[in-house]
Amino acid sequence: MQKSSSSSSLGPGGLDLTQAFFKPIQNAAPPSPTTRHIKISVIGVGNVGMAIAQTILTQDLADELALVDAKPDKLRGEMLDLQHAAAFLPRTNIRASVDYSVTAASDLCIVTAGARQLPGESRLNLLHRNVSLFQTIIPPLARYSPDSILLIVSNPVDILTYIAWKLSGFPSNRVIGSGTNLDSSRFRFLIADHLDVNAQDVQAYIVGEHGDSSVALWSSISVGGVPVLSFLKNQQIKYEKETLEHIHKTVVDSAYEVISLKGYTSWAIGYSVASLARTILRDQRRVHPISVIARGFHGIEGGDVFLSLPAQLGRGGVLGVANVCLTEEEAQKLRHSAQTILELQSQLGV
Amino acid sequence: MQKSSSSSSLGPGGLDLTQAFFKPIQNAAPPSPTTRHIKISVIGVGNVGMAIAQTILTQDLADELALVDAKPDKLRGEMLDLQHAAAFLPRTNIRASVDYSVTAASDLCIVTAGARQLPGESRLNLLHRNVSLFQTIIPPLARYSPDSILLIVSNPVDILTYIAWKLSGFPSNRVIGSGTNLDSSRFRFLIADHLDVNAQDVQAYIVGEHGDSSVALWSSISVGGVPVLSFLKNQQIKYEKETLEHIHKTVVDSAYEVISLKGYTSWAIGYSVASLARTILRDQRRVHPISVIARGFHGIEGGDVFLSLPAQLGRGGVLGVANVCLTEEEAQKLRHSAQTILELQSQLGV
Amino acid sequence: MQKSSSSSSLGPGGLDLTQAFFKPIQNAAPPSPTTRHIKISVIGVGNVGMAIAQTILTQDLADELALVDAKPDKLRGEMLDLQHAAAFLPRTNIRASVDYSVTAASDLCIVTAGARQLPGESRLNLLHRNVSLFQTIIPPLARYSPDSILLIVSNPVDILTYIAWKLSGFPSNRVIGSGTNLDSSRFRFLIADHLDVNAQDVQAYIVGEHGDSSVALWSSISVGGVPVLSFLKNQQIKYEKETLEHIHKTVVDSAYEVISLKGYTSWAIGYSVASLARTILRDQRRVHPISVIARGFHGIEGGDVFLSLPAQLGRGGVLGVANVCLTEEEAQKLRHSAQTILELQSQLGV
Amino acid sequence: MQKSSSSSSLGPGGLDLTQAFFKPIQNAAPPSPTTRHIKISVIGVGNVGMAIAQTILTQDLADELALVDAKPDKLRGEMLDLQHAAAFLPRTNIRASVDYSVTAASDLCIVTAGARQLPGESRLNLLHRNVSLFQTIIPPLARYSPDSILLIVSNPVDILTYIAWKLSGFPSNRVIGSGTNLDSSRFRFLIADHLDVNAQDVQAYIVGEHGDSSVALWSSISVGGVPVLSFLKNQQIKYEKETLEHIHKTVVDSAYEVISLKGYTSWAIGYSVASLARTILRDQRRVHPISVIARGFHGIEGGDVFLSLPAQLGRGGVLGVANVCLTEEEAQKLRHSAQTILELQSQLGV
Repeated sequence: MQKSSSSSSLGPGGLDLTQAFFKPIQNAAPPSPTTRHIKISVIGVGNVGMAIAQTILTQDLADELALVDAKPDKLRGEMLDLQHAAAFLPRTNIRASVDYSVTAASDLCIVTAGARQLPGESRLNLLHRNVSLFQTIIPPLARYSPDSILLIVSNPVDILTYIAWKLSGFPSNRVIGSGTNLDSSRFRFLIADHLDVNAQDVQAYIVGEHGDSSVALWSSISVGGVPVLSFLKNQQIKYEKETLEHIHKTVVDSAYEVISLKGYTSWAIGYSVASLARTILRDQRRVHPISVIARGFHGIEGGDVFLSLPAQLGRGGVLGVANVCLTEEEAQKLRHSAQTILELQSQLGV
Repeated sequence: MQKSSSSSSLGPGGLDLTQAFFKPIQNAAPPSPTTRHIKISVIGVGNVGMAIAQTILTQDLADELALVDAKPDKLRGEMLDLQHAAAFLPRTNIRASVDYSVTAASDLCIVTAGARQLPGESRLNLLHRNVSLFQTIIPPLARYSPDSILLIVSNPVDILTYIAWKLSGFPSNRVIGSGTNLDSSRFRFLIADHLDVNAQDVQAYIVGEHGDSSVALWSSISVGGVPVLSFLKNQQIKYEKETLEHIHKTVVDSAYEVISLKGYTSWAIGYSVASLARTILRDQRRVHPISVIARGFHGIEGGDVFLSLPAQLGRGGVLGVANVCLTEEEAQKLRHSAQTILELQSQLGV
Repeated sequence: MQKSSSSSSLGPGGLDLTQAFFKPIQNAAPPSPTTRHIKISVIGVGNVGMAIAQTILTQDLADELALVDAKPDKLRGEMLDLQHAAAFLPRTNIRASVDYSVTAASDLCIVTAGARQLPGESRLNLLHRNVSLFQTIIPPLARYSPDSILLIVSNPVDILTYIAWKLSGFPSNRVIGSGTNLDSSRFRFLIADHLDVNAQDVQAYIVGEHGDSSVALWSSISVGGVPVLSFLKNQQIKYEKETLEHIHKTVVDSAYEVISLKGYTSWAIGYSVASLARTILRDQRRVHPISVIARGFHGIEGGDVFLSLPAQLGRGGVLGVANVCLTEEEAQKLRHSAQTILELQSQLGV
Repeated sequence: MQKSSSSSSLGPGGLDLTQAFFKPIQNAAPPSPTTRHIKISVIGVGNVGMAIAQTILTQDLADELALVDAKPDKLRGEMLDLQHAAAFLPRTNIRASVDYSVTAASDLCIVTAGARQLPGESRLNLLHRNVSLFQTIIPPLARYSPDSILLIVSNPVDILTYIAWKLSGFPSNRVIGSGTNLDSSRFRFLIADHLDVNAQDVQAYIVGEHGDSSVALWSSISVGGVPVLSFLKNQQIKYEKETLEHIHKTVVDSAYEVISLKGYTSWAIGYSVASLARTILRDQRRVHPISVIARGFHGIEGGDVFLSLPAQLGRGGVLGVANVCLTEEEAQKLRHSAQTILELQSQLGV
């Protein structure tokens, strides 16, 4: 599929305006082969993939956007729908194909494709099917864009990021999962909404395994630069541990709530992943809680496992992991998650 | 439904931080009642309504966004999904309710709700059902926001904009339809894609009735400031009228193509309507081809009818219609569309 | 002075295109008188005032920008220079006049005008002259825009904000000084640059009197959500108090350094004030360290005095002051600054 | 001069937080040497150079910004003033040095440095001095960034762009002058202001030699997609040729007017050059009237000469020149300008 097979449909009339409209100047040279532009590929054009693609487009993060999916009709429909907005957006070259060659020379590959759980299917069986799916996705991506960064959004994100790392053969700084970046945003929204402040003034992390067993880092919460826990202590305001856990539970439940209400989540994950794309591609060196190789942190040992930790991101991928202080209870939860995931990975035989 | 019923869920734990965190200053006064902020309401949270809402949010066009739909679950799910992105966006107050009171004091109301054609249903019957639907939507919108601008996106857009105008009792400059703004963008994309230029450097209008009987204004096309038809004439480049009509046909077909491929259109109409919202709310005085009351233009007489013409938009709605020169054939097509629509309107008894 | 007296120069040729180009539609009504747009006035078009005006324009924060200065030539030159960029920017109505009527109905008035110290002049004498200057600026501003927010940038900012408050008769939540917002940005840059992180991930406040006696709030510093002091403590990293004070001293000195190198500061104060304008006019409810009425905070008593504290800002001006915990030493410094300023104010007889 | 010599001033206290804060992950690899970021260099930090640098920074067009000037104090002052705004902007690495090595591997080099006319100095003598200046600027720029695009802003821009082309040895598509891009913006503003429309809806070019002998292309003017001249003809509106020439004269005079009023121009040229930078670096393929090698267009022969023509720009520099139709009178003016410039160039012996 070409940049836009639609363009060829102007051809039959036999009117070639391009040559007539613009004339070359003298002494010109072809563009240097070292000239680069920014290219993002999105694999999977379902609700999540398209919310990501459209947000990336609106925020003008790429010069070229490539879409890949197994369904050619849906794929071409989504491509055309985005292209038709050209007059309202900065120019971005939007391409789509079922063939991974369309992703060649990407700077960032975002994988949203994933198998859905069948009625009665075990979690392990679903995981087996997703590993099979990734075996068809990751190797061609890595081959066509050997210098790219892989950003995995498909669930279960921590294990699938590990799978993508193994299948790609990439160094670990170039394979990340969206992890708890969105969970942390929900956490920040709930606190900001409660205090009627701007969520961008709320610092708060949820780390660990994406989903039910994630860990809220209470010590990291600050509002407008005021660390909350030490503030409460100084003000001699008593609070119950249950109160804090209640807030965390609301975050965990809110993903389920959105799914039960509208059938899926899309907008918030779209903005969340676009924020990661900006930090990476514009080398912003911001800190995000994302799924990275966690071995060696907070006592996690026994094998290679990906879990969300606050990581500094830039053009080179993961630049480092912030050395946050966990309570022993928090660290233990992380190690427990790591153990569970490692066992699953060994069952998968990967 | 409150700004976010989710916030209340932080309450049970009994930790009220708001009072503790921020203290009032001395000699302060409450905000002046004349202080205004920008509010947009979107009626209908289907694919089109949500693509519009999300694009408005990303482009930071409003201080408050209100969503209304008849389905409370879907509505709440979409509201939460947008709210969860708070940490990635400028602060916008997002509200949602099945009750129109949530739209009170809107600056702009965007209506995307519409009945779908049933198998075997006649066009007239569908129209009757849509008129009934608008009788439940427009009067409360007009009552809660008597100074707002109504922007109709539901199809058939030209007749429904007329219906909204009648039901609202608003002056004609404050009731518009999205009309051929998107058709014109598709037209510009196709030309830009063919010439490999930026679509923002292509000027080209499609006017008249939104859909199959729209009219492409060949004389308005310029690329990078070069008027195309006079250029072709000056360069003695021959072209067949069929070639031009072929391009127009491709535009008309492309809407059908997207629908046949992905089932609906969403992204491009989202960007298109957001561009209208920006022009109106930021008083940009740009010219857009949109559905306006067309009586008195290009020989259109016999009754009040809405058709797309290049109109200058601003904070006051329609500021005027550009005095474009049509060929007699183009004007005749417009008058024919007007006649057809007037007959339908008389059959509807509105 | 008209919106642009330049436009009249197109007139003499006798070609009035406006009427010919756009035709009114039927049944239109004039714009509702309740229709508001966002207007910012900048008083003083020196290096600081123009850096602010231009940054506000680039960031598209206002629908109308009014410039006032005592020098009509410089004023008109700056207005034309901004207007000539119209093709590259969203449409903003830019006006300029020596007469304060041009500021009528502003939402935000930013005062940058100030007298310069004469050779051998005492600080008190300079202050007397600035008070006289403000007596010609503030009353007309307050009269033409009785609902506006006053943002004082002129130095010494804390006393002049107090003077503006007294002269305007405004409630205290609608009179603020840029205060230590820029000092805090410099603080954040130095820490971010040292750690090679994004300055937007660094939280750090400088509060108190703008200038040499400002107070760095060490307990407020966090990097990527990690509170620095407790981190150092947990990691058992020793540091000398002198090290921290050295960083603060670098901040204080950096303003002097820029002035000694280029003669004035402009860009950073322009961005700093534009960030305050955004928070206020888009009701962002973010927390900024700015000069607010400080009586009653941290033991400050004895009279009305303005000092910088972390304040939450929105469309209504100051919404509250963050209840930060100061050490006794920090609070004492604040009270000392307050005392010094109160004495100066009593000497001024205001 | 380092990225920020200021950072070293944090050192003496002996507190190295970087190592403590972020820990490397396992199996990481260093960033690929093929990883590129966007770098812009600005030569000359006077009013024009700094307005360009600041606008580029606000619009987030580069990952790295390098400033070069002969005056180290002014240079460092401007660098620090921009760096101090870090907390309000996306992260951009800002560097400054009197040594051209700081510009290494730039994607775009913008030259604003130029000698000023001395009292009584002949135009030819001034030109000789500027050629000498360019001999110290262009060769090191070309050596440190052999694949970059050179954008010349210094006046007289057409001859100096030719000089830069010769001195660089670059192909002609990678050497351009800002030319009449700003004149065209002023033209568009005057027409838009007269009609009360958005200047972005006005298409209008001024081409040829930047300055008094520039040529207004009346046939290119369209407003909201309506070609003006054919509109006037169709509407049988008579106009005098003098009226049109009066508008052009107002454009030419407005540069002199701004200089006489404020002493220099800065803001509009800043936005104008930033718009070129965006088109080039984001490969927008938009059409701008800029100074390009004009030999072979509109009958210009006799030697290599740079004049402004509507050119399509992208990541590769000049992609082509729009084939606009000139009247014989307009073409003759262009050829006359070309002849005058060629004679000057031969007198310079370049």
